[in-house]
Amino acid sequence: MELLALLNLDGLSLGMSRLSMYPYFDSAHYIVSVMALKEQPGAVEVARRSPFACWFSAMLYCFGGAILSGLLLAEPALACFSNTSNVLLASVIWYLVFYSPQDLVYKCASFLPVRLVLTGMKEMTRTWKVLGGVTQAGKQYKEGWLVMIAVGWAKGAGGGLISNFEQLVRGIWRPETNELLNMSYPTKVTLLGAVLFTLQQSQYLPVAKHNLMFIYTIFIVVNKVRMMLTRSTASPFAPLEAFLYQLLFASQPEETKTRADAQVPVRSPSRDTCSAPKKDVVASVISRNGSAVPETNGNISCVPEANGNGAAVLEKSDKDTAVSKNQSNKKCD
Amino acid sequence: MELLALLNLDGLSLGMSRLSMYPYFDSAHYIVSVMALKEQPGAVEVARRSPFACWFSAMLYCFGGAILSGLLLAEPALACFSNTSNVLLASVIWYLVFYSPQDLVYKCASFLPVRLVLTGMKEMTRTWKVLGGVTQAGKQYKEGWLVMIAVGWAKGAGGGLISNFEQLVRGIWRPETNELLNMSYPTKVTLLGAVLFTLQQSQYLPVAKHNLMFIYTIFIVVNKVRMMLTRSTASPFAPLEAFLYQLLFASQPEETKTRADAQVPVRSPSRDTCSAPKKDVVASVISRNGSAVPETNGNISCVPEANGNGAAVLEKSDKDTAVSKNQSNKKCD
Amino acid sequence: MELLALLNLDGLSLGMSRLSMYPYFDSAHYIVSVMALKEQPGAVEVARRSPFACWFSAMLYCFGGAILSGLLLAEPALACFSNTSNVLLASVIWYLVFYSPQDLVYKCASFLPVRLVLTGMKEMTRTWKVLGGVTQAGKQYKEGWLVMIAVGWAKGAGGGLISNFEQLVRGIWRPETNELLNMSYPTKVTLLGAVLFTLQQSQYLPVAKHNLMFIYTIFIVVNKVRMMLTRSTASPFAPLEAFLYQLLFASQPEETKTRADAQVPVRSPSRDTCSAPKKDVVASVISRNGSAVPETNGNISCVPEANGNGAAVLEKSDKDTAVSKNQSNKKCD
Repeated sequence: MELLALLNLDGLSLGMSRLSMYPYFDSAHYIVSVMALKEQPGAVEVARRSPFACWFSAMLYCFGGAILSGLLLAEPALACFSNTSNVLLASVIWYLVFYSPQDLVYKCASFLPVRLVLTGMKEMTRTWKVLGGVTQAGKQYKEGWLVMIAVGWAKGAGGGLISNFEQLVRGIWRPETNELLNMSYPTKVTLLGAVLFTLQQSQYLPVAKHNLMFIYTIFIVVNKVRMMLTRSTASPFAPLEAFLYQLLFASQPEETKTRADAQVPVRSPSRDTCSAPKKDVVASVISRNGSAVPETNGNISCVPEANGNGAAVLEKSDKDTAVSKNQSNKKCD
Repeated sequence: MELLALLNLDGLSLGMSRLSMYPYFDSAHYIVSVMALKEQPGAVEVARRSPFACWFSAMLYCFGGAILSGLLLAEPALACFSNTSNVLLASVIWYLVFYSPQDLVYKCASFLPVRLVLTGMKEMTRTWKVLGGVTQAGKQYKEGWLVMIAVGWAKGAGGGLISNFEQLVRGIWRPETNELLNMSYPTKVTLLGAVLFTLQQSQYLPVAKHNLMFIYTIFIVVNKVRMMLTRSTASPFAPLEAFLYQLLFASQPEETKTRADAQVPVRSPSRDTCSAPKKDVVASVISRNGSAVPETNGNISCVPEANGNGAAVLEKSDKDTAVSKNQSNKKCD
Repeated sequence: MELLALLNLDGLSLGMSRLSMYPYFDSAHYIVSVMALKEQPGAVEVARRSPFACWFSAMLYCFGGAILSGLLLAEPALACFSNTSNVLLASVIWYLVFYSPQDLVYKCASFLPVRLVLTGMKEMTRTWKVLGGVTQAGKQYKEGWLVMIAVGWAKGAGGGLISNFEQLVRGIWRPETNELLNMSYPTKVTLLGAVLFTLQQSQYLPVAKHNLMFIYTIFIVVNKVRMMLTRSTASPFAPLEAFLYQLLFASQPEETKTRADAQVPVRSPSRDTCSAPKKDVVASVISRNGSAVPETNGNISCVPEANGNGAAVLEKSDKDTAVSKNQSNKKCD
């Protein structure tokens, strides 16, 4: 019985590893990505005023991973655009999501059961992209496991990693935050996948490739669906991150003075927005967000939303934090 | 008679297609580009304080297309700088335009008849660059017509496309606008050329290459000269753009609410400068500019100049719009 | 006697040219770089809140040159990360400098004699990097001496040249200044080295390679140590720069009007921070700095620290200037 179950599972994972992403899973990825773009503040305005810039942003959302990994490996960033059928498909989806009469396509795709299915399918494409990036890097750099992790990560989460520059296309510039300072859940889970697949490719993880693909895919799909159903932003990695942070990084005293800090008694809030926020900002963020992920303590890559326009924006930064946390569930990656 | 006329024209276009751009047409391109740089607000100050940064900016203006297309095709961005004679020529021109005693060179080149001739010659180099980019991409991606368009466009209008980063070299950062959000005439006409040459290379346009070069060159030279003589910023594409916009993109309702819009009742003017400007800004821009291109209605890639520093800058943004529209005639591309 | 002395020196320079940078000199480079990062305002906060972003910044400080030269030559920017032992070494050093209990490692390395030795060893690696870059470019572009200079410069001073983007990783964005507008001493001395090694490689400088390496290394080590011991920011190039500036660039009148200047009577301080500072700012900077390098006059690449937040920040900009000048001695490059 158990052997049958194992054989069935093995067969299932083998079968899944041979699935082709085109056209259904890729379409789901494009639909969810473009919807995430549409839900960014100001995106609809950009679509109204400059359809070309809106289309360009959508292409960055859809193909950001391929572009970023191409740049890192010195391969043509435009190579993904030579696959005309994929680009046409993404463009048609973009047009329908942004410009269909009465927003019909967007409203249908927002219907919760539909969105769940599309999101699940999109998450499956993540596995393929991460594995593709790790494999591609592994061919050029056999022992370069850092490069393999970086390329797998870039290919799977590139759209989020280049978010500052994608926003620049839409005329938005938010330098005080980025995916490294304030890593969203999709970026973290992609990094985890890149590490796992690199270990597997380098023979450090004694798991067959198709089994790892299966387990990883199930994990990310189930988590994503759970977070959407419970409307929760609580990352499943939070306990592990808190533990690692306490173990490795918590010996740093609260106010370490270096020579620069001694010479600059008044830190300009408009420049260095990574300075320690006043305690009341942290407290108010925690109290308003309630069950939100703790802003700094124990989180290896979290920074409270500090606005570069000064202390008078205390209220707005809380709103920003709440809004951006809700949006991170719907972010493109 | 007609046959003779045709043969003459054919001979003329063949002869033109065999012209060498170096050194006269390239020189004209460098002179007009450096003059356009000099006319940017603050450029003379940068020249006075940091000649090196000024020279670097000038090289981006002169070779921006080659650099950008190199980056897109993963070819060395510095390859154009290996052509030492071109770089020396551009550097000498830069020096003369910025530092000649009593600004003699700049004043001579600003003399209208001289400037018309130089601008006409510069526009001719645009044809060669676009065609060069399309051909280069076509060798690597035979069916990749999107790549061909992108590379042809980048090579012909790269200086404008990377303008945000060229301004950064001079210490200026204007994220609220870029060439995709607010496409200038040179960028639009280059995109048109890239599309035409791609169609011709892919055998969809039944025109001989040298004839297309001739027609396109005459079109862009005549338009540019007309716009300079009439001091008009009215784009010849405006009616076509308005028609396409109404046909394809006008079904979008004025205030589409997405989940993000519902959560963010007050949109920060300092971040999202692509939001709908208040009606009075639009009205005052139109009334002060008089015959300026309509700001948004029907324009596929236009965004009114909105300044990220808040409503108090209403007057300045009108001036900016007026100034930048006048300057777009003299922009480097 | 003289022949013996010459032979000894020749032997010494030959011996030095054959030194391996790994692991001691590379370690010194990593230690000094990471310490320079730690001394940047806000870096300790970033280390506390987002160790990942801090690590990424440290890698940009340590390997910025290799990354930038890779991007310029269209070689994989990640290639330097395939050398796992170097990256591991740099990461361990980063961890010890930022997170050792009681800041022990940082305090030990800050002890002046230790810091002098480490800085001297780091300066030696500069020679190897510049020469490596010049040689690498020389293989692809035999006559492209501009490319050779650019790649040698990028490889030796890349960390400083990409400083705007490294700061962006930490959530800081300071567009009003960059290494081209306001070249620091390490960047200048690296440019000099790139020029010398290019001339030597192109046979224009009749000096043996190992002798030039020796002379250049002695020059930069001695200067750096002198500047650290005297706490001086006075660049040894200042007289030469002043002379060249007067000779080549001083004919530019104080207030050159171009068409753009005529149309923009009030220059927005928030955009163009390269405009002429008011005379009182210049005067107060000079009087407070005393013996500081003159801010503009005669300096080919210097711009006074002008803050983009308006005249009310007059005091802070002076502090900034003083702080940044002190920090330039400790900057990573």
